[in-house]
Amino acid sequence: MSDPFFHPVSGFDLPRFAGVPTFMRLPHVPADHPRFKDVQVGLIGVPWDSGTTNRPGPRHGPRQLRDASTMIRAQHASSGMRPFETVNCADLGDVGPNPADIQDSMARITAFYAQVVAAGIRPLTAGGDHLTSLPVLRALAKDGPLGMIHFDSHTDLFNSYFGGTMYTHGTPFRRAVEEGLLDPKRVIQIGIRGTMYDTEDRDFAAANGIRIVTIEEFFERGIADVMQEARAIVGAAPTYVSYDIDFVDPTFAPGTGTPEVGGPNSYQALQVCRELNGLNIVGADLVEVSPPFDQSGNTAFLGVSIMFEMLCAMLTPTKG
Amino acid sequence: MSDPFFHPVSGFDLPRFAGVPTFMRLPHVPADHPRFKDVQVGLIGVPWDSGTTNRPGPRHGPRQLRDASTMIRAQHASSGMRPFETVNCADLGDVGPNPADIQDSMARITAFYAQVVAAGIRPLTAGGDHLTSLPVLRALAKDGPLGMIHFDSHTDLFNSYFGGTMYTHGTPFRRAVEEGLLDPKRVIQIGIRGTMYDTEDRDFAAANGIRIVTIEEFFERGIADVMQEARAIVGAAPTYVSYDIDFVDPTFAPGTGTPEVGGPNSYQALQVCRELNGLNIVGADLVEVSPPFDQSGNTAFLGVSIMFEMLCAMLTPTKG
Amino acid sequence: MSDPFFHPVSGFDLPRFAGVPTFMRLPHVPADHPRFKDVQVGLIGVPWDSGTTNRPGPRHGPRQLRDASTMIRAQHASSGMRPFETVNCADLGDVGPNPADIQDSMARITAFYAQVVAAGIRPLTAGGDHLTSLPVLRALAKDGPLGMIHFDSHTDLFNSYFGGTMYTHGTPFRRAVEEGLLDPKRVIQIGIRGTMYDTEDRDFAAANGIRIVTIEEFFERGIADVMQEARAIVGAAPTYVSYDIDFVDPTFAPGTGTPEVGGPNSYQALQVCRELNGLNIVGADLVEVSPPFDQSGNTAFLGVSIMFEMLCAMLTPTKG
Amino acid sequence: MSDPFFHPVSGFDLPRFAGVPTFMRLPHVPADHPRFKDVQVGLIGVPWDSGTTNRPGPRHGPRQLRDASTMIRAQHASSGMRPFETVNCADLGDVGPNPADIQDSMARITAFYAQVVAAGIRPLTAGGDHLTSLPVLRALAKDGPLGMIHFDSHTDLFNSYFGGTMYTHGTPFRRAVEEGLLDPKRVIQIGIRGTMYDTEDRDFAAANGIRIVTIEEFFERGIADVMQEARAIVGAAPTYVSYDIDFVDPTFAPGTGTPEVGGPNSYQALQVCRELNGLNIVGADLVEVSPPFDQSGNTAFLGVSIMFEMLCAMLTPTKG
Amino acid sequence: MSDPFFHPVSGFDLPRFAGVPTFMRLPHVPADHPRFKDVQVGLIGVPWDSGTTNRPGPRHGPRQLRDASTMIRAQHASSGMRPFETVNCADLGDVGPNPADIQDSMARITAFYAQVVAAGIRPLTAGGDHLTSLPVLRALAKDGPLGMIHFDSHTDLFNSYFGGTMYTHGTPFRRAVEEGLLDPKRVIQIGIRGTMYDTEDRDFAAANGIRIVTIEEFFERGIADVMQEARAIVGAAPTYVSYDIDFVDPTFAPGTGTPEVGGPNSYQALQVCRELNGLNIVGADLVEVSPPFDQSGNTAFLGVSIMFEMLCAMLTPTKG
Amino acid sequence: MSDPFFHPVSGFDLPRFAGVPTFMRLPHVPADHPRFKDVQVGLIGVPWDSGTTNRPGPRHGPRQLRDASTMIRAQHASSGMRPFETVNCADLGDVGPNPADIQDSMARITAFYAQVVAAGIRPLTAGGDHLTSLPVLRALAKDGPLGMIHFDSHTDLFNSYFGGTMYTHGTPFRRAVEEGLLDPKRVIQIGIRGTMYDTEDRDFAAANGIRIVTIEEFFERGIADVMQEARAIVGAAPTYVSYDIDFVDPTFAPGTGTPEVGGPNSYQALQVCRELNGLNIVGADLVEVSPPFDQSGNTAFLGVSIMFEMLCAMLTPTKG
Repeated sequence: MSDPFFHPVSGFDLPRFAGVPTFMRLPHVPADHPRFKDVQVGLIGVPWDSGTTNRPGPRHGPRQLRDASTMIRAQHASSGMRPFETVNCADLGDVGPNPADIQDSMARITAFYAQVVAAGIRPLTAGGDHLTSLPVLRALAKDGPLGMIHFDSHTDLFNSYFGGTMYTHGTPFRRAVEEGLLDPKRVIQIGIRGTMYDTEDRDFAAANGIRIVTIEEFFERGIADVMQEARAIVGAAPTYVSYDIDFVDPTFAPGTGTPEVGGPNSYQALQVCRELNGLNIVGADLVEVSPPFDQSGNTAFLGVSIMFEMLCAMLTPTKG
Repeated sequence: MSDPFFHPVSGFDLPRFAGVPTFMRLPHVPADHPRFKDVQVGLIGVPWDSGTTNRPGPRHGPRQLRDASTMIRAQHASSGMRPFETVNCADLGDVGPNPADIQDSMARITAFYAQVVAAGIRPLTAGGDHLTSLPVLRALAKDGPLGMIHFDSHTDLFNSYFGGTMYTHGTPFRRAVEEGLLDPKRVIQIGIRGTMYDTEDRDFAAANGIRIVTIEEFFERGIADVMQEARAIVGAAPTYVSYDIDFVDPTFAPGTGTPEVGGPNSYQALQVCRELNGLNIVGADLVEVSPPFDQSGNTAFLGVSIMFEMLCAMLTPTKG
Repeated sequence: MSDPFFHPVSGFDLPRFAGVPTFMRLPHVPADHPRFKDVQVGLIGVPWDSGTTNRPGPRHGPRQLRDASTMIRAQHASSGMRPFETVNCADLGDVGPNPADIQDSMARITAFYAQVVAAGIRPLTAGGDHLTSLPVLRALAKDGPLGMIHFDSHTDLFNSYFGGTMYTHGTPFRRAVEEGLLDPKRVIQIGIRGTMYDTEDRDFAAANGIRIVTIEEFFERGIADVMQEARAIVGAAPTYVSYDIDFVDPTFAPGTGTPEVGGPNSYQALQVCRELNGLNIVGADLVEVSPPFDQSGNTAFLGVSIMFEMLCAMLTPTKG
Repeated sequence: MSDPFFHPVSGFDLPRFAGVPTFMRLPHVPADHPRFKDVQVGLIGVPWDSGTTNRPGPRHGPRQLRDASTMIRAQHASSGMRPFETVNCADLGDVGPNPADIQDSMARITAFYAQVVAAGIRPLTAGGDHLTSLPVLRALAKDGPLGMIHFDSHTDLFNSYFGGTMYTHGTPFRRAVEEGLLDPKRVIQIGIRGTMYDTEDRDFAAANGIRIVTIEEFFERGIADVMQEARAIVGAAPTYVSYDIDFVDPTFAPGTGTPEVGGPNSYQALQVCRELNGLNIVGADLVEVSPPFDQSGNTAFLGVSIMFEMLCAMLTPTKG
Repeated sequence: MSDPFFHPVSGFDLPRFAGVPTFMRLPHVPADHPRFKDVQVGLIGVPWDSGTTNRPGPRHGPRQLRDASTMIRAQHASSGMRPFETVNCADLGDVGPNPADIQDSMARITAFYAQVVAAGIRPLTAGGDHLTSLPVLRALAKDGPLGMIHFDSHTDLFNSYFGGTMYTHGTPFRRAVEEGLLDPKRVIQIGIRGTMYDTEDRDFAAANGIRIVTIEEFFERGIADVMQEARAIVGAAPTYVSYDIDFVDPTFAPGTGTPEVGGPNSYQALQVCRELNGLNIVGADLVEVSPPFDQSGNTAFLGVSIMFEMLCAMLTPTKG
Repeated sequence: MSDPFFHPVSGFDLPRFAGVPTFMRLPHVPADHPRFKDVQVGLIGVPWDSGTTNRPGPRHGPRQLRDASTMIRAQHASSGMRPFETVNCADLGDVGPNPADIQDSMARITAFYAQVVAAGIRPLTAGGDHLTSLPVLRALAKDGPLGMIHFDSHTDLFNSYFGGTMYTHGTPFRRAVEEGLLDPKRVIQIGIRGTMYDTEDRDFAAANGIRIVTIEEFFERGIADVMQEARAIVGAAPTYVSYDIDFVDPTFAPGTGTPEVGGPNSYQALQVCRELNGLNIVGADLVEVSPPFDQSGNTAFLGVSIMFEMLCAMLTPTKG
């Protein structure tokens, strides 16, 4: 049972549109807060998009996600789990990036997460573009390479862009494999689609043992079957979950920078998360929500609904 | 066969974007109109949203629904029914609410519908928020409790909000059961989903015999199976149909105040109505269309497409 | 000089789009916070719009205003004032309203402000619709009627709406005069325009000595002349400032519920505030920002720019 | 004094967002209505845009203008006139155009207005694109050429487009002069601006005695001076007023097809109408409101505010 | 293998948001360009919407489609085809229509396509409303009637509108059959739905042997089964493919003028194209994208994704 | 007189919404085009925003500006100048930036402009964020420091951001002065406003002789007086003009990243450019148009109207 200090305010007591918006109406507990040491799961924003190669905007993601997240209530509809009463959850605030310096930003992000990891807090991140995952993994994988279940329409496994630029949102997991942060044989990428430059990324995956499930395979086999394979691939060892909102069809999630049509609907977007229960999840992220391309906040609301599902999955008992 | 006075103007004679917009281009026949007594099905707007606990706006629903409804043509595509040539349909205008007084508004609505019922007119309502259904039921259920098929993502069965407020759009059907307007054993709620405050509403349903079909059950069993059960539950006795637009996935119907992701698509939204044929429908409503959250009118167009389906269902011969 | 605890974070240290959004990046100091007693000026949100007679939405105002307010920097451009370093400013959070009960909401608002007044804090309010001003004045005018400078396109002096409803956003200042919260001879209303129901409100003003400056007079005489008269009317005694965003032309502030075309531009919207310097301002509000009608946040950004101007005016030394 | 049948419903009795939207909440009195013969000023929609050479959409103008017009109240703010109580005003409905046949549409429009003129009704038109004015003038100028005060950013005096097409919204007034519907020496065009193809239109104006006031001259001389000249040019003889919404700066009226930046603001847009008082106005139009380019309805609200001003001007006693 | 002159620029060399936007970043090769004779497949815009009977706007389609098309990369994700390296593809520019003259526009379009056909170029057209297909077919069917696979929610087989107007976007294929451009027994229409005026169009189809697959049949049988029938109907003879974006559900493609709810999703929208492989396709079009109703460009991005699928289908070897 | 090759297509020949959109419908003449050497004024896009410290998006500016620019016709309305017939103007295309590497991007930009300068072409640039001006000036000021007239709401004279980052859109002109590209005594900045971090930028200006005209001074003195001073400051020596769209009030130009309310309107935005006639302008830019924050294109249309004014000013004979 969690400490009541960490319970969100109910919409029955204070309307959901009222109040300073923290993630899911949780208390704001920055690193210098006296209760920081008691947090078990920390929701963190990384307002950063310098790795974006196409349409920018994810730097505004955490704020819009916080706003939309005040619509999230206390209990999961189908499992009945009440996560905020299960463990101590808190909004740890945002990592402050340097919008004009990629390396400096990555250093700041890794430093922030190192502090979180040192405090024994499991992070649930709201990006930010997908390059965000790299500096987060640098902090999380300090004891060895992690497995990863990765929902996305892109592999993000390219070597470089624009004549040799190594750090963009199209390269993080190639870097992560090269740096030993991910064990490629324990990585699965689900939902891959869209027109392609070439096969460089898929060749890298094939050469290293990364499993790619295209959208066609995903729809043909169905969620249960694909996710069973995903669970088998990552096994019981420590695993990261990375969820790019562009995994979902852009009609359901227009607020993103590099959409690819023909993806899962919102029901499927949630269902895949429910198949993560019982895994050994050391951290998760939801990235690439870009508010300038959906000022309505509808994409963000789907995003936080996904974050709530991942949060619940993180709290289910790990199965041997 | 209907009286030609009640036929809508064809888009072949007058383009669909032209003319003063009444519901489905029907004649505007307010209660003091000489032909009021000849109306058989009346389309009524209730521009009211004082029961809204989250994002307001349904007070603007009827006008946007009228605008979008001029896109509706004369014939149902699959059944071939031509409803406006079957019975006398008319736009009865709007009930005038009091935006700053909930009880006064409910009294006005009930009085308006009492007049409609007294004239032998079956009402098809365009809301307004879901509290609208309560004063409507007060007029319709004068001879005893009704059955109800209820499409929604929420049960609207809570007891109170904000420390004791009994009349909001989250409480109408609890009040209706308490007031004897609905027979809970003849009530089915379909599409329920979204994070939950607690189980108070579901406990009330269970205690009173209201059947709840969650979205997971809905997708697993399919429309035909679920609707067969719905038909069995309400039987041949008088039945009300209440359709909250947030039953539909918010990507298809963003113009609403309390969306829950992961719902049916627009095809499914129409198909469920087709399974209402032959029931003893004494009235129906489509509520919670909130134009400020979808100025494009796309949600309203889906809403009037649903209203047209419900209208056709109301006109099929009742099966023994 | 203010306590550094109350200084906002600089955009040079943390980008302005990052972080949990409080008003002007000030610390969040609710009433139960240990530093509450040290606050001198409190920024308060009242997310409430039950008094709205036309288009709703100001209940969402405080959150959007907080978001936009992170664009406000430390120093006033023309006066050089650095308000946050002058006195202790803080975000006191939102008053929690009851969206479905007007009287309950007004009681909650008055109670919140009574606590603020008791702590010696001067409030700067972000509404909410204009009925908000009434319960605020009930707390502020405990020692006698106040003067008021009121920027608006409407007088808000009507007696009732919809057949006898006494509390709407069109009646607050009539009630305030009747309740002895405002001294009508020390009240001036500036910017009045738009088509009229009748002259009931203006007759009340004339009978009670309230000065009305129409938009035509405002443009003919100019800001300096009109504001000099305003200053003379309220004098050195305690004065409230109420600023309805619909004072500004709706092209500059589309996010509001009852716009009237033909108003001041954004430069004029700021300039009138600069003429408030040196008055004895006991509180001020900025009301009727309605995010559903301007999802871009541009209206809110103008709104917080006006709030910053009013804040600076509140901090200038009072002239005998 | 007008017949109470022709009075609009008050927003105090029925909220302004409620009810079937007719122009200014007036009764809908089509030509076959028994009260048609009693109408003195008729508001008419012409939902037509086949003459558009650039961005289409004004076919949707009348409906959006009707919607926005329910915000118009009974009394003019500065003059105190209550037009609807002065003469019998009514919404005569829309002329039904043929969107795919320009000549057929013009014939339909002229026939409709001939009926209006025959009934002694003065028309106030809501367009439609500017070609609308031509078939209207054909009905109105049956007794000889009219004078015209024309607010616009374009002269609409070109000979042809696209290699010989004579009827577009860039040519109506050249045709009207050629057909003897307008007396060019009694025509003044105000607000002309924007980059030019060439000087063909201005050469035609110069050769025929049409007075052009550019936007630079308009701003330099001011409204009073320019409008005094306009009044002198048209004199006491029958005069038409044609108001293209693109006269106004596109920031204030973005919902139009061929905007030109650098125009009057909304206050000036209204003030010019007030200088029409006492002229012998036989008809007026407000054209080129294009809802697809401003779904917010703000342009339409400005448009109906202008229509209300023109209506009041039409009702002031004609000065010898 | 194609000539490198005809290769698009890679997003790795020049970011996809940069550069003058041609279709799919191909070279712009108008008819007077020296390489025109070497083009094998030409992408052509027809910015025209004079046949529209409801909401206009497709005249702006080609430009928005070009903009969105710069997101298309070199390789098809599932087949691996690299179309731009297979044959010489180019952007041939736009046909210049006459917005105010339907017959003149049709003549211009047919003349343009006659030139294309004479040069041995297969056209892939971006409309424009659906009347566009008629003048295109006049050029393509010079050697005899074609077969057609037609994706749409409407049959476009009506005889006339508005009392005898023969050329609108609701009549092109009736005209094409009458003119001998299409062999009705080799025509299949897929996705038909929405409320109907009457059965005139379906009666014409039945009388002439045109096969109509309603949306209900489409969903019941599935894509593979329906498309197998489609392939059998058109056979190995020359075939045209016409794709109205309103075939897709309007939630996925809101930017269109006459939407009908309850259609296929974006994945299905692409999949049907993949079943066109190996047919003898002499030309194809994607019509009715209307940017004013979706300024986000999302509809256009789906549209160009469909165009890319059709392009790849056109390049697969024809099966005997 | 210019070569007809360089004349734009008339909207009378091809509708303005048709065709591949180049700047002002000029021919696209990249550096490897045979006519490149004949260009006299080159319009260039720099789709880049890596220097943005707040809301991103100007990387999309050039494309939206090209789209809007097809609305520009051949002749200036008040001066009668026909610039495209005066000198050879062309669209030189976009500089390809590296979105993930600031230094690389600056090198690419300077190299591109060096080529332009070497060809004797005067550049008129469409940004891009304001950091764009720095690498452009590096190419233009090769023969010594330039004077500059700078329209903006910010000085862009800060030393660094985020703890030492030297290259952002808030620092370009400080770098330019330090690098000897600008002569600070020949620099004037007009329109400065908005809340301030501190006075570091103004202190630098004062210490180096840069003239700052605040918005208050601008409005008090008027355009003629301020611009006369500006002309005197830069004199007859080579001068650069840099126009940040946020100089204009954000209501008129919402599509930008760092708006400041209370600025000039669109008429004033154009008028200031007309006072540039006769100066020795070696280049000009219009920067900070950010399409994600104004998808309507209205900001871009104002932007290209300003570019057209600057182009005309660049072509007036230089006065001794």
